[in-house]
Amino acid sequence: MRKIPVLKRKKSPGRTGKIGLPPGSLFHTGEQKVETVRLTEFRYDEDNVIEESPDPHTGSLPVPRKKDVTWLNLDGLHDIPVIERIGHAYGLHPLLLEDVLSTGGRPKFEEYDDHLFIVLKMISFNDESRRIDAEQLSIVLGDSLVLSFQERVGDVLDWVRDRIRTGRGHVRKERADYLAYALIDAVVDSYFAVLEKLGEKIDELEEELIDDPDESTLHRIHELKREMIDLRRSIWPLRELVNSLIKSVSPLISQSTRIYLRDVYDHTIQIIDTIESYRDMVSGMLDIYLSTVSNRMNSVMKVLTIIATLFIPLTFFAGVYGMNFRYMPELELRWAYPAFWVLSIVVFVVMLIFFRRKKWL
Amino acid sequence: MRKIPVLKRKKSPGRTGKIGLPPGSLFHTGEQKVETVRLTEFRYDEDNVIEESPDPHTGSLPVPRKKDVTWLNLDGLHDIPVIERIGHAYGLHPLLLEDVLSTGGRPKFEEYDDHLFIVLKMISFNDESRRIDAEQLSIVLGDSLVLSFQERVGDVLDWVRDRIRTGRGHVRKERADYLAYALIDAVVDSYFAVLEKLGEKIDELEEELIDDPDESTLHRIHELKREMIDLRRSIWPLRELVNSLIKSVSPLISQSTRIYLRDVYDHTIQIIDTIESYRDMVSGMLDIYLSTVSNRMNSVMKVLTIIATLFIPLTFFAGVYGMNFRYMPELELRWAYPAFWVLSIVVFVVMLIFFRRKKWL
Amino acid sequence: MRKIPVLKRKKSPGRTGKIGLPPGSLFHTGEQKVETVRLTEFRYDEDNVIEESPDPHTGSLPVPRKKDVTWLNLDGLHDIPVIERIGHAYGLHPLLLEDVLSTGGRPKFEEYDDHLFIVLKMISFNDESRRIDAEQLSIVLGDSLVLSFQERVGDVLDWVRDRIRTGRGHVRKERADYLAYALIDAVVDSYFAVLEKLGEKIDELEEELIDDPDESTLHRIHELKREMIDLRRSIWPLRELVNSLIKSVSPLISQSTRIYLRDVYDHTIQIIDTIESYRDMVSGMLDIYLSTVSNRMNSVMKVLTIIATLFIPLTFFAGVYGMNFRYMPELELRWAYPAFWVLSIVVFVVMLIFFRRKKWL
Amino acid sequence: MRKIPVLKRKKSPGRTGKIGLPPGSLFHTGEQKVETVRLTEFRYDEDNVIEESPDPHTGSLPVPRKKDVTWLNLDGLHDIPVIERIGHAYGLHPLLLEDVLSTGGRPKFEEYDDHLFIVLKMISFNDESRRIDAEQLSIVLGDSLVLSFQERVGDVLDWVRDRIRTGRGHVRKERADYLAYALIDAVVDSYFAVLEKLGEKIDELEEELIDDPDESTLHRIHELKREMIDLRRSIWPLRELVNSLIKSVSPLISQSTRIYLRDVYDHTIQIIDTIESYRDMVSGMLDIYLSTVSNRMNSVMKVLTIIATLFIPLTFFAGVYGMNFRYMPELELRWAYPAFWVLSIVVFVVMLIFFRRKKWL
Amino acid sequence: MRKIPVLKRKKSPGRTGKIGLPPGSLFHTGEQKVETVRLTEFRYDEDNVIEESPDPHTGSLPVPRKKDVTWLNLDGLHDIPVIERIGHAYGLHPLLLEDVLSTGGRPKFEEYDDHLFIVLKMISFNDESRRIDAEQLSIVLGDSLVLSFQERVGDVLDWVRDRIRTGRGHVRKERADYLAYALIDAVVDSYFAVLEKLGEKIDELEEELIDDPDESTLHRIHELKREMIDLRRSIWPLRELVNSLIKSVSPLISQSTRIYLRDVYDHTIQIIDTIESYRDMVSGMLDIYLSTVSNRMNSVMKVLTIIATLFIPLTFFAGVYGMNFRYMPELELRWAYPAFWVLSIVVFVVMLIFFRRKKWL
Repeated sequence: MRKIPVLKRKKSPGRTGKIGLPPGSLFHTGEQKVETVRLTEFRYDEDNVIEESPDPHTGSLPVPRKKDVTWLNLDGLHDIPVIERIGHAYGLHPLLLEDVLSTGGRPKFEEYDDHLFIVLKMISFNDESRRIDAEQLSIVLGDSLVLSFQERVGDVLDWVRDRIRTGRGHVRKERADYLAYALIDAVVDSYFAVLEKLGEKIDELEEELIDDPDESTLHRIHELKREMIDLRRSIWPLRELVNSLIKSVSPLISQSTRIYLRDVYDHTIQIIDTIESYRDMVSGMLDIYLSTVSNRMNSVMKVLTIIATLFIPLTFFAGVYGMNFRYMPELELRWAYPAFWVLSIVVFVVMLIFFRRKKWL
Repeated sequence: MRKIPVLKRKKSPGRTGKIGLPPGSLFHTGEQKVETVRLTEFRYDEDNVIEESPDPHTGSLPVPRKKDVTWLNLDGLHDIPVIERIGHAYGLHPLLLEDVLSTGGRPKFEEYDDHLFIVLKMISFNDESRRIDAEQLSIVLGDSLVLSFQERVGDVLDWVRDRIRTGRGHVRKERADYLAYALIDAVVDSYFAVLEKLGEKIDELEEELIDDPDESTLHRIHELKREMIDLRRSIWPLRELVNSLIKSVSPLISQSTRIYLRDVYDHTIQIIDTIESYRDMVSGMLDIYLSTVSNRMNSVMKVLTIIATLFIPLTFFAGVYGMNFRYMPELELRWAYPAFWVLSIVVFVVMLIFFRRKKWL
Repeated sequence: MRKIPVLKRKKSPGRTGKIGLPPGSLFHTGEQKVETVRLTEFRYDEDNVIEESPDPHTGSLPVPRKKDVTWLNLDGLHDIPVIERIGHAYGLHPLLLEDVLSTGGRPKFEEYDDHLFIVLKMISFNDESRRIDAEQLSIVLGDSLVLSFQERVGDVLDWVRDRIRTGRGHVRKERADYLAYALIDAVVDSYFAVLEKLGEKIDELEEELIDDPDESTLHRIHELKREMIDLRRSIWPLRELVNSLIKSVSPLISQSTRIYLRDVYDHTIQIIDTIESYRDMVSGMLDIYLSTVSNRMNSVMKVLTIIATLFIPLTFFAGVYGMNFRYMPELELRWAYPAFWVLSIVVFVVMLIFFRRKKWL
Repeated sequence: MRKIPVLKRKKSPGRTGKIGLPPGSLFHTGEQKVETVRLTEFRYDEDNVIEESPDPHTGSLPVPRKKDVTWLNLDGLHDIPVIERIGHAYGLHPLLLEDVLSTGGRPKFEEYDDHLFIVLKMISFNDESRRIDAEQLSIVLGDSLVLSFQERVGDVLDWVRDRIRTGRGHVRKERADYLAYALIDAVVDSYFAVLEKLGEKIDELEEELIDDPDESTLHRIHELKREMIDLRRSIWPLRELVNSLIKSVSPLISQSTRIYLRDVYDHTIQIIDTIESYRDMVSGMLDIYLSTVSNRMNSVMKVLTIIATLFIPLTFFAGVYGMNFRYMPELELRWAYPAFWVLSIVVFVVMLIFFRRKKWL
Repeated sequence: MRKIPVLKRKKSPGRTGKIGLPPGSLFHTGEQKVETVRLTEFRYDEDNVIEESPDPHTGSLPVPRKKDVTWLNLDGLHDIPVIERIGHAYGLHPLLLEDVLSTGGRPKFEEYDDHLFIVLKMISFNDESRRIDAEQLSIVLGDSLVLSFQERVGDVLDWVRDRIRTGRGHVRKERADYLAYALIDAVVDSYFAVLEKLGEKIDELEEELIDDPDESTLHRIHELKREMIDLRRSIWPLRELVNSLIKSVSPLISQSTRIYLRDVYDHTIQIIDTIESYRDMVSGMLDIYLSTVSNRMNSVMKVLTIIATLFIPLTFFAGVYGMNFRYMPELELRWAYPAFWVLSIVVFVVMLIFFRRKKWL
């Protein structure tokens, strides 16, 4: 029998450790995912691109300039002084920094006076644990400046970096808002990859369901259901977020970038649609599982009933002729014993025919 | 036993291959459905109609003129240079072209500066696979110009072509917006045809349900349920789309065409209504299936219980008189054996009456 | 056993035959319900009333006059030329006429330039088939003019005709909008009559459910459920329709008539409320049915278990003393056989007491 | 066994008798609940209060005066001429009077030119029938005037009368709108009393559910569920009604009374909340009932299986040594019979241990 | 067997005792939770803080001053004169005081002319009863003044007091609105702590569900479900409340405090999200429980069927050779008895193989 997977509750959003701290206190609520934090800086315009890695504690932080776009990315969130330093350098509100550090939060979009703040969840399918990993990406979009904060090195954003380095695509020709869009687009694309994996899981489960479902199938169905619910919980606010970005009156987002964001918006709807159909499929699988179990029960019952029905009457007759009454004329008859067998076989066959008629066989 | 249909997950929307490409990159995400792409051009006013098939790569693309209506239709989406050529000729946004190629998208309506963009799903019932086939139709409505893009030759639009060629109906008397309406109307009509087929499927299933339901019936019910869900997913955005068209302030759509679109809108509501009743019917069928299965179980149990109840006591009595005690006065009695039979039959009959009273027989 | 009613799918809205026809083509999609169409004309003011039946094809159609109210009613929709003639005479849009003929549509309200168009469903309970019959009533409200189109002679509107003829009630004192209101009110009243009948059906089913439910009860419950769903589908748009009428800015509806329409609106809400409670009752009946079936199964199981539990041990003991071992001291004892019976009866009684304790008896 | 309560359908709203009557016709649709109608009149200001009972048919009806507040209450609705007389005296619209008489209606609020019209349901728990009784209260709020119509004498409004008579509370210091508020408040309070009783019913049912649930428990749960649904149906429109009153721009309601109405509004939300939790509890009870029934079935099955499993193999062995083969060496052995018993007991005990391991005992 | 927890209905909101009292009457509807009421007063600005405990009946109540912030807190609500005294001193509306005393109410926010009124529920997990305790906190926010009313001493607000005393955090630098925010924030944090405990309960239940579920598991699941529903009922209005505070145009709340409130708002959404996932998990647990119970039934049935199927045919054969027919040739054969055993064992083994194939073993 397959092992029954224990349903794992995701730890509740890690506010507990923070209770009692004054609001705006910086406190990293997630688990530390990298050894040391790392800063990377891109500075580009259509013709040039500079890539640097200033020291997070002592290196000079880039000053945004009108004429090009500056992208400063931080990997790792456990080093509070670095966060505070960045916050101070670019004039970020303490609550914004708090949100950057609270990796248990949900996607959101907030407008501050001279920058926009976006929190996203990048997801990826962990092939080992066969579960979905989520990582928080916070983006601050200022004038000619993008700050991004992520929990660990290595992410779905590498494609954006490649395009900046090589100059492929539009990104080098556009301003900071397009870069922010490109990051969001990359995150949304990560959902498609995970959906693909979930789709494969569903296919596997369906085959298992037809072949040989057992109790572990039920647990797996529920696990899948829960993953879908989790996914849905992070994609819905993502959709709202993109919508708010499109509708935002902020001058930081140009009209042409809004058209691209509309495209991202369509993708989020498409993801929601796919999740909804997966959910329906999983519900259907639950029905089929339950019905399969009950059909098996049925077939067990039928075997029992057939055996009992075939033999119980015959056993009675055998019992009758095993009685020790002195006066039982049949016992003396020569052909009585063969007749008993003939009778037994006739009854047996008649019953088999009856069962076939009833569609039990 | 009927074959159990395996529930087929529809491939998730084909964004996977595109992940990492810069947005606006043209990439056909569907499967190629025709050998070579084909362009057809209609140019008509009330009195004249010209029909041509320019070469997709080299033929001259028609320039729209105020005095007549130009309809350019492309069959087949895999030939990117052709798409790019058309996009360039008529000033279409790269994201619009991307949507034309992403056949996994959902129906939508977008307004661009000097044209409207509409994505629809034409559906048809494939009699062989007994499934619903969907094909994407993208329409660009400009001033005196309609561009349409479809995945393969042969479609529900032939009636519109016929009416243009023969001059039947209003289409030749009206402008490009009426042509766009006629195309949408034809697509919406295709849903009625599919609903008709689904209705027949439901009728078949209901008869099967009364006659002789088995495990495959359950799978078929679920398959039907899923088809209905898919259909509903494409008709709801279609309804919104038509509504947006009616409410759009674009000068490209005349007041009189809006009245016709209102009619299409009513049809989409009617389709939704029909799908909802079908869904209710299918849910009811599920209840009936489950109840039938449990009733069968019941009848199996009854047979078992009747047999056991009739014979077990009699077998006990037979066993008693098969005992070898030296002092069993009954064994010596002359009438004991016939009395045993009489008693057995009386008990048997009394029990039969009891069961009939209990409505088990 | 009662006959199982087959769930009848209502034919899908009859657009299929129309697919490919240009929009606005006149085509009667329902079944023909009368032999020949019939026109009736009322022309009344507070003092006088004229009733006539002009020939549908050749008779002169009344011209509406400011000083009185003209009501032209058509019974039967299959005679297209008559429809076209009326449409032409009163300047009706082709799509309006199409809606008059599409009897599969849903209730709706549309404003045209100089008239309002209302589509309603009159329902009645057919005592023979024990089902709900629906008939479409289309009303065109112009200035001093009401046109009405129905599928067959004989309807819920006779009360309105009576009041016009006899001058009872307000109708003769008011304008055309009040007449339209009176027609709508009569249609809404027809729902109350049908609800009454459905209520009786529910009462019958509940008694059946307590007395002796079988598989046909389940089918009947589902049939009732579906009728309720159908009813709900036609009453909801009716409610919206009346609401739109009240809120309409059209000068064709006077302020005082709006107060009456508000009353009709309340009635539609009351009907919806009643249908909702019926639905809840029917759901409860389903639960009770399923629970009754499972309780029966339970009682069957109990009988089986009691019989088996009472006799199987005794049969074992009888079997033991039927063994042929040479050395079985009990067999020789004089009181062994009576002791066997005493023991059997004691075990039997003890078990009976045990079962009574367990509440199985 | 407890008696199974038959689910009683409430008679459908009594419009049936009215079908065909012209709208605005006065017709009492409820059952007559008092012998004769009775009029009571209060006329008060801060210092004085006059209480009178004018004859309904001939007594002079009070004329409202600016300087004090007049409250005219009618008990009993079956006497149409009295209703008409009041309607005429205070200029009430015929549809308003129709609503007063249609006791099957739902709570509503309507604004007329110079008065407001409110329909409420007072409820009380009938200790005898253990059901909820509802009575309709209609309130007309004019300038310095409150008219109220109820179905029978004796009601939840006595507290308001007491406060007017004794001058306790604010009511004597305030205007007619405060009196209307006090009446509504008293009606809303009647819901709390009924909720308390329903709560007790739930407690009883829960104990029954733990102790000894049977089929009547299920029926009782469904009855409770239905009562809750009925209650919910009358409290929701009540909430809307109070909300409309608060938001109404009518000068008949002063700003200070609106603050009190906001308080009533909070109470309606609290009632809805309580009903919702009761509904959840009742749903949970249904789950527990079904699970209890299935657990009982389980325990019956276990007993059957244990008995069968313990004795069937032993019976087989007894049967073997009851065979009459000539050459059965065991039969001759001295210790064979005791060995048989030892073996039987060992098998028996081993199986008992096995069952205990499986947690069946 | 674990004890079955009886589902405890929370007493319905304690309005019953109040029915008939004039509105605005002060009456404490909760249970008294402290011996004597206690007043504590904080008066602080950035540099100084004064903490006092004036006698509730005779001590002088602080007069709010522009230059600092006054916070007056009352522990215990049963002493009506004290409440009235405070109400009188700060000009509070009688209905506001009534709400302070009605501890059964739901979270709400109301704007009065010169103060804002907020009702909250503080919750905490009672480790002894393993249930959630709720306590009502009412806050009145005036200009430079915060009044707070709670049911008992000792609460989640101590952190706020500490911060005022020590000057940590922002609170001393800000005005009264920030203090009100800090109180709300502390209350919202209390939900996170309770969620953590509920999460642990869920983990325990899940282990129990895998190991050894019994009827008490079902009851526990339902209890958990109900706690979640209760929690949800108090967090939803809390969210609305915070939202209304943010959107309120009252000058009592500064722009900078609104940014902090937006943060609280995010936390309430996060709590709702967590509760929703917990609810989904608990629903899944219910499914798994029911499926486990039915699987056990299945395995019981299988054992029964296997035993019966293995032995019933063999018992029949043993019965046959126990018959006393005179002419049974087999009985005389030397090898008949061993052959019987061989046959029995072969049948036995064949059946075991058959069962293994069927996956019953």
